[in-house]
Amino acid sequence: MAQKTTSDAGRAYHTQCTGDALATVKAHEKDEDITLFGSCFCPFVQRVWVAFEVLGIPYKDLDEVDPYKKPKELLEVSPKGLVPGLRFNRYDPARSLNESTVILDFLEDLAATTTKRSILPPITNPYARAIVRLQADHVNRTLVPAFYRYLQAQTEEKQVEGGIDFHVALEGLVTLLERAERELVGQGGISGQGEAELLQKGLGVWIPGQKDLGWADIMAGPWLFRAKVVLTHYRGFQMPHGERFDGWLERLFEHPSFKATCSTEQLYLDSYERYAFNRPNTSMVATAINEGRALP
Amino acid sequence: MAQKTTSDAGRAYHTQCTGDALATVKAHEKDEDITLFGSCFCPFVQRVWVAFEVLGIPYKDLDEVDPYKKPKELLEVSPKGLVPGLRFNRYDPARSLNESTVILDFLEDLAATTTKRSILPPITNPYARAIVRLQADHVNRTLVPAFYRYLQAQTEEKQVEGGIDFHVALEGLVTLLERAERELVGQGGISGQGEAELLQKGLGVWIPGQKDLGWADIMAGPWLFRAKVVLTHYRGFQMPHGERFDGWLERLFEHPSFKATCSTEQLYLDSYERYAFNRPNTSMVATAINEGRALP
Repeated sequence: MAQKTTSDAGRAYHTQCTGDALATVKAHEKDEDITLFGSCFCPFVQRVWVAFEVLGIPYKDLDEVDPYKKPKELLEVSPKGLVPGLRFNRYDPARSLNESTVILDFLEDLAATTTKRSILPPITNPYARAIVRLQADHVNRTLVPAFYRYLQAQTEEKQVEGGIDFHVALEGLVTLLERAERELVGQGGISGQGEAELLQKGLGVWIPGQKDLGWADIMAGPWLFRAKVVLTHYRGFQMPHGERFDGWLERLFEHPSFKATCSTEQLYLDSYERYAFNRPNTSMVATAINEGRALP
Repeated sequence: MAQKTTSDAGRAYHTQCTGDALATVKAHEKDEDITLFGSCFCPFVQRVWVAFEVLGIPYKDLDEVDPYKKPKELLEVSPKGLVPGLRFNRYDPARSLNESTVILDFLEDLAATTTKRSILPPITNPYARAIVRLQADHVNRTLVPAFYRYLQAQTEEKQVEGGIDFHVALEGLVTLLERAERELVGQGGISGQGEAELLQKGLGVWIPGQKDLGWADIMAGPWLFRAKVVLTHYRGFQMPHGERFDGWLERLFEHPSFKATCSTEQLYLDSYERYAFNRPNTSMVATAINEGRALP
């Protein structure tokens, strides 16, 4: 078991990106139709940010929003004051959108008629889209809550239970990726190379040799990255190993669109210490986990 | 406050539809490409069933699946043994799909290239689709869990709290419907009647005079109906009143595609008594609510 950190050093969360992510923010300072309200350590923001990069949709990046102070301009685009939020600047009164999964579907739909890029398989193959959406459903309803329950667990017993649950959630995702690959890539009436490429779209870097990020990569990637950095440090978590799994994570974490949204590891260690010691009033997400409620 | 029922009569859940729903099952007995695995009282099944009806997609209806006995043929299409599940009979090995929200997206995508019907606004208007999806997100993550917490609450204090939470969740949905109407129908660059119709698609019977069911109607309808029947009976719940709200529910409950999937009220009263008295081992949904976890 890896060593874990057991005392709260009282470190504060960061309010500005570092490393590659900071460079990306600086490259997106000029006004665009869409402004992205984010915060540097938030994984819900990161999945949306990666999608902007993959789909090639122009955006202005506002990474300095402090979601815990809930400034007025954030509340205008996201009624609960949660990031991510989008503001569409060409409308008066301004239009806006919140909720990361809703924004991801929006960006995918928007790209279909603008940049002509996509992450999901094409709408002409509803089954392929659906089995990719099954992965997202698992990530959102099982893997993400399991991440926070594990990180916020304070007793030895709860931490062991949390570690097992998170491991099982990862295995569940792998099972769904294997199923998608078996049904979409391996067999099942794929008539030619072109169609195969369309079908496996959405499976992304799970497939060795594939260069595009898939839907599940974008949905789960931010938590997989934080698992590697934060859970390892604070919980002694060991990521599952195996040639296939290791290769997948490496392709995901090294993908230019993913890497472009990652800050340096220290930023995450500092920003997640609050969660790891379950400090009071850490966040609405942390409170929901403590109360046994669905995430806000 | 309406009178509520306070003693458990030990009634068992039904295993076959009654009333209009039974007639619909009988009209869908012949083999089709898609088999729908359902159970008569399950709201997650009903939302999928309504979508089949609205989108005009052929299906064979298997309503006699007992989800608590988890028969092998159900486990083959739904790994957790939960309904609804779809089996695609023309493939060997058979393809399948589970999770009601994933199935709803699938049916919408499938109809786009087959029956040419739709429930969501068109993909050419990503923003309209997104603000309709916001409603669905609220239904799934807030309204549905609030329904079960309220129904399963056993102490007076928890029941009062549950009633307030459920009421707030209903108000939250109405707020999102009003927002969608304001942004999609009332203003915002709609250039003509045709476009207006496309944009308001997805808002459904919330709009007086509109005949099609919308995305939120289908997402929330089964729980709204059970609130009217089951929560009124077991919790003395009073549905919110108001000309707009009453008219909406009436259009929803009287819509042919919705009505076609409703059994008689007694079926729901019998089948939900287990939840109302929080009997042990009622269901995986009930257990998740009791444990403060996300719904399975």
